[in-house]
Amino acid sequence: MRILGIDPGLATMGYGVIDAVHGNFAVVDYGVVTTPKECTLPERLCQLEDGVKELIETFKPENISIEELFFSKNITTGIPVAEARGVILLTAVKSLGSEVYEYTPNQIKQAITGYGGADKIQMQHMVQALLRLKSVPRPDDAADALAVALCHAQTSRMSTAFRIQ
Amino acid sequence: MRILGIDPGLATMGYGVIDAVHGNFAVVDYGVVTTPKECTLPERLCQLEDGVKELIETFKPENISIEELFFSKNITTGIPVAEARGVILLTAVKSLGSEVYEYTPNQIKQAITGYGGADKIQMQHMVQALLRLKSVPRPDDAADALAVALCHAQTSRMSTAFRIQ
Repeated sequence: MRILGIDPGLATMGYGVIDAVHGNFAVVDYGVVTTPKECTLPERLCQLEDGVKELIETFKPENISIEELFFSKNITTGIPVAEARGVILLTAVKSLGSEVYEYTPNQIKQAITGYGGADKIQMQHMVQALLRLKSVPRPDDAADALAVALCHAQTSRMSTAFRIQ
Repeated sequence: MRILGIDPGLATMGYGVIDAVHGNFAVVDYGVVTTPKECTLPERLCQLEDGVKELIETFKPENISIEELFFSKNITTGIPVAEARGVILLTAVKSLGSEVYEYTPNQIKQAITGYGGADKIQMQHMVQALLRLKSVPRPDDAADALAVALCHAQTSRMSTAFRIQ
């Protein structure tokens, strides 16, 4: 199963594409879609929509996994990120319908490290290990997106296992 | 000039359509687009996109005016509203390009009542007066959307006046 993982953002949206077969994972691609600060918010939302469409056309994922937002404090900077996430989610759903999945930061940490309170470094090393990469993927947003894709791979594998029982 | 004003929301999005000619304003229509809580967030975002598209097709506005979000505290409930606003803004911009305008709550209050700290009741009565309505428009979200449309009418009229000078 090919999974596109997305770490939502307005200035930088991370993406990670993996193939998951019987609990084995292989990286297909990862990187970021960026939008320039000089552009207006509407322009940047259109650029994000184009970016997501292009990723879907290029990699033809069967499932898309998108991280949910969590803000403990700074809502002012959070509003544009949430607006961007709305656009990303809409674009994904219009292409893949019900094959779009959302996970909270804690669910992702739990699925990757077995521990909901894992820190960024632990997460990145687990992503590196699970995908058998020579180094930690860069930039951070791309590593986060690979974690979101892996979370869905692990979660859907477990739910399939439960269903078989 | 026909203006579509939008008060963004996920459960309830207010809209107000006005015609503005030389400082005179006439109501064309107002109301709300609602999305059921029983639906998933992606489904509701698609419903909002459809709603905005339908308003644009029906009323053929020349300008769209959308309120910016402001949260002083509760970010948890704010995230889905911001996600909805991203979708509304994207949909508007894809139809009307640069003819989409954004105003902060304070700018709207200032334009309607001349006072950035005006309360809801004052705003509603000014909307009623400016549009020569027999009663305050209901529900609140529709009245808010009419205020957003009026704000753009007043603001663009002023900026045109300044340009002439």
